[in-house]
Amino acid sequence: MRFNETLEKIKTYEAGKPIELVVREFGIEPQNIIKLASNENPYGTSPKVVDAVREIADTMYMYPDDSMFELKSALAKRFEIDQKNIIIGAGSDQVLEFCARAVLNEKSSVLMSKITFAMYEIYALQQGAKIIRSSCYRHDLEEFYDLYKKHHPDIIHICTPNNPTGDALDAEYLYSFLDNVQEPLVIVDGAYMEYAAFKDEKKRIHPQDLIKKYPNVIYLGTFSKAYGLGGMRVGYGIADQSVIGQLYKLRPPFNITTLSLKAATTALEDEGFVQYSIEQNFLQMERFVNFALQNGFEFIDSYTNFITYLLPENRKSKSLSEALLKRGVIVRDLTGYGMNALRITVGTKEQNDRFFEIFKEVLNEY
Amino acid sequence: MRFNETLEKIKTYEAGKPIELVVREFGIEPQNIIKLASNENPYGTSPKVVDAVREIADTMYMYPDDSMFELKSALAKRFEIDQKNIIIGAGSDQVLEFCARAVLNEKSSVLMSKITFAMYEIYALQQGAKIIRSSCYRHDLEEFYDLYKKHHPDIIHICTPNNPTGDALDAEYLYSFLDNVQEPLVIVDGAYMEYAAFKDEKKRIHPQDLIKKYPNVIYLGTFSKAYGLGGMRVGYGIADQSVIGQLYKLRPPFNITTLSLKAATTALEDEGFVQYSIEQNFLQMERFVNFALQNGFEFIDSYTNFITYLLPENRKSKSLSEALLKRGVIVRDLTGYGMNALRITVGTKEQNDRFFEIFKEVLNEY
Repeated sequence: MRFNETLEKIKTYEAGKPIELVVREFGIEPQNIIKLASNENPYGTSPKVVDAVREIADTMYMYPDDSMFELKSALAKRFEIDQKNIIIGAGSDQVLEFCARAVLNEKSSVLMSKITFAMYEIYALQQGAKIIRSSCYRHDLEEFYDLYKKHHPDIIHICTPNNPTGDALDAEYLYSFLDNVQEPLVIVDGAYMEYAAFKDEKKRIHPQDLIKKYPNVIYLGTFSKAYGLGGMRVGYGIADQSVIGQLYKLRPPFNITTLSLKAATTALEDEGFVQYSIEQNFLQMERFVNFALQNGFEFIDSYTNFITYLLPENRKSKSLSEALLKRGVIVRDLTGYGMNALRITVGTKEQNDRFFEIFKEVLNEY
Repeated sequence: MRFNETLEKIKTYEAGKPIELVVREFGIEPQNIIKLASNENPYGTSPKVVDAVREIADTMYMYPDDSMFELKSALAKRFEIDQKNIIIGAGSDQVLEFCARAVLNEKSSVLMSKITFAMYEIYALQQGAKIIRSSCYRHDLEEFYDLYKKHHPDIIHICTPNNPTGDALDAEYLYSFLDNVQEPLVIVDGAYMEYAAFKDEKKRIHPQDLIKKYPNVIYLGTFSKAYGLGGMRVGYGIADQSVIGQLYKLRPPFNITTLSLKAATTALEDEGFVQYSIEQNFLQMERFVNFALQNGFEFIDSYTNFITYLLPENRKSKSLSEALLKRGVIVRDLTGYGMNALRITVGTKEQNDRFFEIFKEVLNEY
């Protein structure tokens, strides 16, 4: 049996360890585990969404409405766009996959930041495309422009706020870059945009602005972060109809579950919950900033629900994250991204209390 | 902007119309609509599964356990295989997609029955592969063998029971074919296998037998039909580790929702519900057989939860299905498959009572 050669180069994504795995591996009771690794919304899911899902749980035997009429209507209203500008994916991840498969092949290249969301590379490699990276984790768009002129990539990835670093671009800075980039598909991943826009309105990218001005740009959003639905796999792409039409050719039927559609639609109706989550996030974020300052860590000013601690050379993020894990605290070690750094989700007050307590212990020992 | 050329040839799948759409298009109240178009389990979802999902609905904010440990354990136990022989997909559809993407390219060809599940062709076309079809909707495996020898396809699709026709192969007949086919990946799609095996034990394909003897065969199963979870998008592939390992490279992280994992795992614990659904299905199936005999329709002896009526030339399936739709009855017209036929899901007693009543009216008028 023969498999396609492109498979040989593919890496697989290393997901944040689920609580179940820590229970199995270290025998720690679930209630004693704090997961600050996957940037979920620590305030959970809106109770209104939970109720709505419970109410229709007995319809699980029925295939979802594949037109996704209700969810698309709600998104169209929210962003003041037409339903035809929207494609729904099983997480914005799946829209990324559609983009890669629609555009890339073995002759293509893809431009992205030195350190950014790991799936960009994985989907590109699945298509056999070449990866071009900038020299810095921050999106230096002057450098991006030079690399674009030099390599003619078919896709440019802009992640703002950037994951796993947390920094964000000013909208005007991005727009002035986009003004000069016509050929490639530019993917603007706003998975954490709700957080960034709350902290600083200048960071807010309006998808409706993007699609009006740039027919080669797709904006990605997700319900996995601020909307508290990481487990339900719903994201979306917003772009010119010509792009959406092509991506639709690769969308498998029924790519969103019946309950996920209901959950996402209801989540859009409870903005109060989202705003509360974001406000609390930045109140708690101050504690992480202060902790870093007190302990002499560098950190990246974050526009998200996580913070990235840049560790000094004498402290290895790998050892620290393993020591934390053995005590039931799951954070994300960024060694695999080429950084001696920890990415920590900003939890609830109680989670953070416990995190700081355990982290202090670990720092004393390592 | 440039898109891959393969996109030009792609068809999109026409899903069964959801009830929501009929409500919107024809203004019929949901409670007056009978959907017998998508082969869902008309007895719904097991109440135990509904309870289990409701219980964990407040964990929707958390990413799923991406190792899928619990569901894989349950499947491994059920089929007496190792977890390493299993890959879980968002419906068995997604495993089909992994297979196509792992194996096919623009130089490939794919062999399938003249009339079979539409997604086989769609995924093959997405990869730019050529389609080779047998001359009959039934899987004549002698003809398949000749076509295999002639065209050297990279994938052979065996759908048993076949969808949308409902006929099924004897296991021994299939095994004797597989004995002689080493090179291509053979995909044995058993989406309706639970029904076929109940009706006639000779039709039962044991995935554990397949993987022991045939390292180039993958068996597909689903929770969408007998297990009553069409809306939750869970299916699986069972194959030799060497195949599973390659497919895993294309599996996106978190491809199954948190609630879907719980639903599928719990569904495996309630075999009583599945058996009840299947027994009722074949009791009700007799009525569809009798109706066909009384009205002089030909039909295909079905090993599934649907029946395919082959209509005489003076009755057009397209007109009949449209007339039914206007009266709130959704069935599947097979004109698009090149058959003047209707595929009708066998519903509950009450649904079928109403279906026969309305179908008689329609037959009198058309």
